Amino acid sequence: MPSVTGPEIERLIQLMAKLPGLGPRSARRVVLALIKKKETLMNPLADALSVASAKSSICGICGNVDTQDPCAICREPNRDAGLVCVVEDVADLWALERANAHKGRYHVLGGVLSALDGVGPNDLNIGKLIDRALTGEIREVILAMNATVDGQTTAHYITDRLAGTSVSVSRLAHGVPVGGELDYLDDGTLAAAMKSRRPF
Amino acid sequence: MPSVTGPEIERLIQLMAKLPGLGPRSARRVVLALIKKKETLMNPLADALSVASAKSSICGICGNVDTQDPCAICREPNRDAGLVCVVEDVADLWALERANAHKGRYHVLGGVLSALDGVGPNDLNIGKLIDRALTGEIREVILAMNATVDGQTTAHYITDRLAGTSVSVSRLAHGVPVGGELDYLDDGTLAAAMKSRRPF
Repeated sequence: MPSVTGPEIERLIQLMAKLPGLGPRSARRVVLALIKKKETLMNPLADALSVASAKSSICGICGNVDTQDPCAICREPNRDAGLVCVVEDVADLWALERANAHKGRYHVLGGVLSALDGVGPNDLNIGKLIDRALTGEIREVILAMNATVDGQTTAHYITDRLAGTSVSVSRLAHGVPVGGELDYLDDGTLAAAMKSRRPF
Repeated sequence: MPSVTGPEIERLIQLMAKLPGLGPRSARRVVLALIKKKETLMNPLADALSVASAKSSICGICGNVDTQDPCAICREPNRDAGLVCVVEDVADLWALERANAHKGRYHVLGGVLSALDGVGPNDLNIGKLIDRALTGEIREVILAMNATVDGQTTAHYITDRLAGTSVSVSRLAHGVPVGGELDYLDDGTLAAAMKSRRPF
């Protein structure tokens, strides 16, 4: 493709196209919108990127992303340090926090075991979780991996690794999503919801 | 929503969510991906944004976005200066250039007339087009607005404004898109294609 615009703008489009969810066409659209709003959007975004890049870091305890290490969640004294929720990714941690669904701490694996993608236990943040469990500080581990095959494989692997410790292991409940319609649910979810039915 | 992460990262997410095509959820995904690839993506993107912001400008002649003013297209001596293609937006100019469909110059309106959105002739880059036409340099204007109601209203308005000059006005052909299937085309396109049929 011949270059239609200046090399500096072309380079920005190429970098934008590498972001998840953006392709060459949407990257061009984004860059044009930025150039139209230089003062209100483009320059603040450039500054925010530099600042966030300089300040953000991965929490050495749980793997969360924050501007301090240990992260705000690991520092918070009111949280139950004995209750640790294990998630695949920082995005899942943020989702649980937005839902206000967990009052303990977290552990971010940074992915799931996957034979196809060649991801083994040493590629994930599992060793540190076992270390945390061995200190005796953790009472219960809640496995909150995605309900995919790889997520469940990872959950089983972690359960095996924790078998020798005093930590009890639980997982998120399966069932009908709140607001969901039975007619549109898959058979597996319906069967799980029926099996785990609760007194009304 | 309580802040899950540091303020600098939250601010970056908020700015990212303002980009066209991104919302709060995809902005969070983008920011997490950036923090994971600080050296290879986040820092280069911050630099590219600053450089592009400092160097990019709107061409004073045609309204194109480039790193020089007048833009590369207006400077290029091999292009037919008498043939000017009028487009709504810079993205349309880039699309025509990628298609290698036009060997003349351009004029970018920066939008279309819209009674609903309150966009009048003075909000668009129409005055400069008339000025260019009055210098006698332009032989033909090709109206390449989108085939929407507002696009066609704008085309009619520009035709009226150019009526007193020596400039001839044409528009893009309507018809069956290359690779398109008749079965999926709307009635208006089929009728236009039939009416403008060509000897085979």
